[in-house]
Amino acid sequence: MSNEGLILASDSRTNAGVDNFAKFCKMTVFERRGDRVLILLSSGNLAGTQAVVSVLRQRCAEGDAVTNLFGARTMFDAVRLVADAMRDIEKRDASHLQQNSIRFDASFIVGGQVRGEPMRLFRIYAEGNFIEAGIDTPFFQTGETKYGKPILDRVLTQETPLADATKCVLVSFDSTMRSNLSVGMPIDLICYERDSLEVRWRRRFDEGDPYFTSLSDEWGDGVRKVFRHLPELRW
Amino acid sequence: MSNEGLILASDSRTNAGVDNFAKFCKMTVFERRGDRVLILLSSGNLAGTQAVVSVLRQRCAEGDAVTNLFGARTMFDAVRLVADAMRDIEKRDASHLQQNSIRFDASFIVGGQVRGEPMRLFRIYAEGNFIEAGIDTPFFQTGETKYGKPILDRVLTQETPLADATKCVLVSFDSTMRSNLSVGMPIDLICYERDSLEVRWRRRFDEGDPYFTSLSDEWGDGVRKVFRHLPELRW
Repeated sequence: MSNEGLILASDSRTNAGVDNFAKFCKMTVFERRGDRVLILLSSGNLAGTQAVVSVLRQRCAEGDAVTNLFGARTMFDAVRLVADAMRDIEKRDASHLQQNSIRFDASFIVGGQVRGEPMRLFRIYAEGNFIEAGIDTPFFQTGETKYGKPILDRVLTQETPLADATKCVLVSFDSTMRSNLSVGMPIDLICYERDSLEVRWRRRFDEGDPYFTSLSDEWGDGVRKVFRHLPELRW
Repeated sequence: MSNEGLILASDSRTNAGVDNFAKFCKMTVFERRGDRVLILLSSGNLAGTQAVVSVLRQRCAEGDAVTNLFGARTMFDAVRLVADAMRDIEKRDASHLQQNSIRFDASFIVGGQVRGEPMRLFRIYAEGNFIEAGIDTPFFQTGETKYGKPILDRVLTQETPLADATKCVLVSFDSTMRSNLSVGMPIDLICYERDSLEVRWRRRFDEGDPYFTSLSDEWGDGVRKVFRHLPELRW
């Protein structure tokens, strides 16, 4: 999240062991133009995260005043509804998973804007409690977070222009995919402009995407060039 | 490990919880000039790794033909002796630790050269089995490995000059220390030149070291500059 907007991105790889992997989109958008945009990114157990999203969609379709995301007055209230849905699914499934020593493990990043409020960005833990991004920590990650974090730490601040932040997020995913097979293309990306209250910029990057490939190559070349120009150690 | 030599580096932070951390050197050198250089880097339980090093030193001092590192005919045989010492300590301590649900967890990276052989680099797992670096994977990490790996992946090959590889290793540590409090200065660094059979280049970087600081700053500036010049996404 920067002053100009929000960037949300997710990979599409899921796996139940290295011999069983598949592609599923982990990004879900709830949008009513001019009123609100809520973007959910999921990580963890796919059956769990899909069930949460289905429950949230059904509650929106039913238009229940208390539980539907389009009725929430603030981002905080909307995030509580996502957490409630997570806990409902956990209540239904967790004990059954536990019988096979599987932990119920679904978590979300939720970013967006409700009319009348500034943009807000949250990270919901598997337990349903959550934290909100602030000036000191302008971004969240979920899932495999370590490989891609150093570059985000070095580049992202509240002042980073959206175009630079977009490149940074894509390079972060590139680094992660090189090191962890459980993260893979396609990458879904949304760049939300502050106060637009609609999703104008959305892109999917598939294997071999020309822009993504050139970004990755030029980043690699640029980094090696920076190394050559760094001061040498005098022993 | 590159064609020109070997670079080995370690941080010095140890901790038993965030409220109890300390500095200990995790690098140990066994050197007999003109004959062999063996450099050990340790990670994991400090009592365990210190005991392994003490046992290895005592066996060298006693000059036992079968168990002392200066008697080993090859790097492979030397690494087996390190593994044997690890297993001896585990045998003595593991069951006592287990009573408090603590896992015996000590592992090592061992690099160096024995006269008559090329340089070799090994990573010994906590169980005492080990792997050796090759052309496809010229480096090993132990301990907190994820944050610092992407930069090593992008830069290091067999052909990387030692001066560039040195900078790369230091930047990797800088990235790791920014993200993980359990990794901290000082950094110990050895650059071993192929066939020298002695340690000529050794440096310790303390908090505030002028070279390390300028490297970190120039790297950060360089990276941000690379971002500005990367092609922008056209939606």
